[in-house]
Amino acid sequence: MTDRLSLFDTTLRDGQQTQGVGFSAEDKRRIAESLDRLGVDYIEGGWPGANPTDSAFFAAPPKLKRATLTAFGMTKRAGRSAANDEVLAEVVNAGTPAVCLVGKTHVYHVKHALGISRDDNLANIRESLARLRALGREALFDAEHFFDGFAADPDYAMACLDAAIEGGAAWVVLCDTNGGAMPAAAARVVERVCARFGGGRVGIHAHDDTGQAVALSLAAVEAGARQVQGTLNGLGERCGNANLVSIIPTLMLKAPYRDIVHTGVNVEGLRSLPEISRMLDEVLNRQPNRHAPYVGAAAFAHKAGLHASAIVKDPTTYEHVPPEVVGNERVIPMSNQAGKANLLRRLREAGIEAEREDRRLAKLLALVKTREEQGFAYDSAQASFEMLAREAFGQSRRYFDVERFRVTVERRHDPRMGAQVVSEAVVVVNVDGERMISASESLDPVTKADQGPVNALVRALKRDLGKYQDYIDDMVLTDFKVRILTGGAEAVTRVLIEHRDGAGARWSTVGVSPNIVDASMQALLDAIAWKLTRDGAPLRQLQPGE
Amino acid sequence: MTDRLSLFDTTLRDGQQTQGVGFSAEDKRRIAESLDRLGVDYIEGGWPGANPTDSAFFAAPPKLKRATLTAFGMTKRAGRSAANDEVLAEVVNAGTPAVCLVGKTHVYHVKHALGISRDDNLANIRESLARLRALGREALFDAEHFFDGFAADPDYAMACLDAAIEGGAAWVVLCDTNGGAMPAAAARVVERVCARFGGGRVGIHAHDDTGQAVALSLAAVEAGARQVQGTLNGLGERCGNANLVSIIPTLMLKAPYRDIVHTGVNVEGLRSLPEISRMLDEVLNRQPNRHAPYVGAAAFAHKAGLHASAIVKDPTTYEHVPPEVVGNERVIPMSNQAGKANLLRRLREAGIEAEREDRRLAKLLALVKTREEQGFAYDSAQASFEMLAREAFGQSRRYFDVERFRVTVERRHDPRMGAQVVSEAVVVVNVDGERMISASESLDPVTKADQGPVNALVRALKRDLGKYQDYIDDMVLTDFKVRILTGGAEAVTRVLIEHRDGAGARWSTVGVSPNIVDASMQALLDAIAWKLTRDGAPLRQLQPGE
Repeated sequence: MTDRLSLFDTTLRDGQQTQGVGFSAEDKRRIAESLDRLGVDYIEGGWPGANPTDSAFFAAPPKLKRATLTAFGMTKRAGRSAANDEVLAEVVNAGTPAVCLVGKTHVYHVKHALGISRDDNLANIRESLARLRALGREALFDAEHFFDGFAADPDYAMACLDAAIEGGAAWVVLCDTNGGAMPAAAARVVERVCARFGGGRVGIHAHDDTGQAVALSLAAVEAGARQVQGTLNGLGERCGNANLVSIIPTLMLKAPYRDIVHTGVNVEGLRSLPEISRMLDEVLNRQPNRHAPYVGAAAFAHKAGLHASAIVKDPTTYEHVPPEVVGNERVIPMSNQAGKANLLRRLREAGIEAEREDRRLAKLLALVKTREEQGFAYDSAQASFEMLAREAFGQSRRYFDVERFRVTVERRHDPRMGAQVVSEAVVVVNVDGERMISASESLDPVTKADQGPVNALVRALKRDLGKYQDYIDDMVLTDFKVRILTGGAEAVTRVLIEHRDGAGARWSTVGVSPNIVDASMQALLDAIAWKLTRDGAPLRQLQPGE
Repeated sequence: MTDRLSLFDTTLRDGQQTQGVGFSAEDKRRIAESLDRLGVDYIEGGWPGANPTDSAFFAAPPKLKRATLTAFGMTKRAGRSAANDEVLAEVVNAGTPAVCLVGKTHVYHVKHALGISRDDNLANIRESLARLRALGREALFDAEHFFDGFAADPDYAMACLDAAIEGGAAWVVLCDTNGGAMPAAAARVVERVCARFGGGRVGIHAHDDTGQAVALSLAAVEAGARQVQGTLNGLGERCGNANLVSIIPTLMLKAPYRDIVHTGVNVEGLRSLPEISRMLDEVLNRQPNRHAPYVGAAAFAHKAGLHASAIVKDPTTYEHVPPEVVGNERVIPMSNQAGKANLLRRLREAGIEAEREDRRLAKLLALVKTREEQGFAYDSAQASFEMLAREAFGQSRRYFDVERFRVTVERRHDPRMGAQVVSEAVVVVNVDGERMISASESLDPVTKADQGPVNALVRALKRDLGKYQDYIDDMVLTDFKVRILTGGAEAVTRVLIEHRDGAGARWSTVGVSPNIVDASMQALLDAIAWKLTRDGAPLRQLQPGE
């Protein structure tokens, strides 16, 4: 029999402390729903009242099927009752089933940061948690600086936990707030706390300031703790929090953990980890870490010539877990065979039939490699990959030509209107020898605000495509991402766009250029070509001289 | 008395196995010289004979002052003598003072990968190392898959180490080749090996497949090992090797390590770690990891309002080591989490004096929150924050007005040249009543490729600012980041730019608009205003009617 281990995600609270990270309420809902599907037990959504976004998020919380939505706050201040502390009141008023309150457990901090007596701090902890229980909430206590506090004065640090338990805390969570604790030493402290309260009430909350947050969390589980707090991709202030995406597979797959504990994540959840990890990167518009344990694109990539032949004989020789168990796949860049198998599968998905020995396969493989070095990202742009593959297989279809385009952005100071920005695009296309010129401004239909040059270009291009117009009328641009890739002195811009159509299809395309407008145009033309191909639009007529 | 711990860097060998990494011989020399200055003991330069780059590197090796240049290879094959194995011969012929040979220690691999008898493998190990000693080289033995091998057959794994020591190995290095070992379990194995040979001959070589390579290496040191193998920034195949940049500060600064061992790295070496880490990223053309332990730009960044007030009172409360000891610095960014204490500190840094009770403080705080809701990111744009603060405190300075600007991007199909993109900008500024019009194209000086509309705008604006021209001539745009924020239905674009000047100052500014060109212009105008303010440029003259 294994113990149930509780997973507490704080991506939306502690993760949000990261420099440069600012989730919108909508981002938070999307992340919370993914975490719920994954199977974590608690989702800490933020600090109600601390900022407008968190307040907005709790005002319209996500619908969770399994996880418990949790609000974060701090223990009441001295000199007022828990019921009369307005900071605590805002946290409570968010109405979440669980609330996690942080409080001091280090004598130095009680004296210097709070400037109150040791006993007042104990009373603040006890009464704050009791208030939550009186309101019928599940109460958790984050013991700030616990390991440093325990080193400074073990009796007082333990007395703080006693106060939380007396107040009715379901969990006391030992926080290594400054990230300086060492795993083995911390595990010895966890053991003592578990001996006092039982591991089923003890959690661990680690930070990665020495690169050991994952190891410290796992060591705490081995020492008896039964709750792990962490974030997706290790997001968090300074060097980040303990990375749940690394911890979960180790807990489920590796000895001794798989023999000690089980979690609310099932095998499907485990397989969904790469997707969830990428979802967060996408929300943050970050490049995924190729080398992330278990989920990174290179986590099972075998480059070494020395290893590659053994890998071909028996893949398990250089893999500590099978990649498919964590939803990942083996990559052997040196071996053309593995690359080819991968490619054949993708072609089949695109409806292009090819044999393993087809020479065009090697040509396409080389083309993909070259283009990816330039910045194209075909993993995220399946439709552009398809267009490239059709070209390599001589199945490229030409529908129309863009003879020229021009985009203008202008800002003027108008004495009455103030600064005004206007974007305008002109596109000339040639369909079956007929030249069509379209122009468009870029004004939001509701706000009348200018939406920028790319938007103007999209509108102008989609305005008149002659006989193809019916095919593209239901195309809606649903996502537009820009990244500047600094490939040395020459920066290039990568544009990824996503379209949706009336039939519910979604497809992504990519463009790369030093010029953002040009990159956008490439992605846009790929998107239109993909739609026309899929819908079987008639090809253009050959023109004289072709 | 502490033991001497040996640091063995394999960035140039195991690090080179990373997908997408291909050092030139010149890159290798540059990295080796940096490692030598840092104070590592061994620099493994590559595998002579395995590829042209490694052969070229060893043919013209770097001049090292302290570190021992080491060649990598594998133990001889069965059926020939060590002197007659041509693969081993190439390694030996590189002429390095030390050689590290990898060999099998796992019975399964001996049987299935090599297909030889257990005894033949032992003889291969013994004789290969003896050959190195006979040639007067220092010999190291990398025990491949040691922890898995020990679990499968402890006696045989240990017999392999015996063979290496009998052959004359100075070090036997226990490799967790597939990265699957857990720190605590591995440490128990290290203890047994150290009990047999003494820790002074035992090394550890860990991989990060569960995110615990640093912790495992440190646990091995606690268990008695006295050599740590790793790479700069954790570079390496799959999830990477143990990160020496994280391990070295922990060994030197943290208990129990600082009380057990010392290394060849001195306090200057420790302070140079951020620079060495960035040097590697530069060679690899990678964006530095802001969240890297000790050396990352955000490793000592404190965003949380809750923490920020304590930080102002006493920085050590939220820092496990002083940032300056590892050559880093404290950052207290602005953000929607910010409290007043944080704000006051930032204002002081910007040279704006304010009291805690100043009403303008609350006004500024509200302004920052509102603007961050719109997408501004002041924690990443200190200079824009400063401009905003000056406005709130009535210290805003007006230098010039941009009356209008226009940016055009045009693509034409030229029958001879193919598709050509041209960006052009026109800016009209008003300085002291004098209108100045400037135009600029956007061609890269070297490649002649178009660099896009924002680049054209920057050039045009900086071309003629009248009496301010001298102040801005040394401004160089060093970074440009774009993010589309989908805050609901209305997408806005956030542009973050960074400038540097001749005096070495660096400052970042931000702009937000649905229109990327407009957002860029905002950031650019903030950047110029910041520079003019800092350099004490004269204000503009009041115009008639103002």
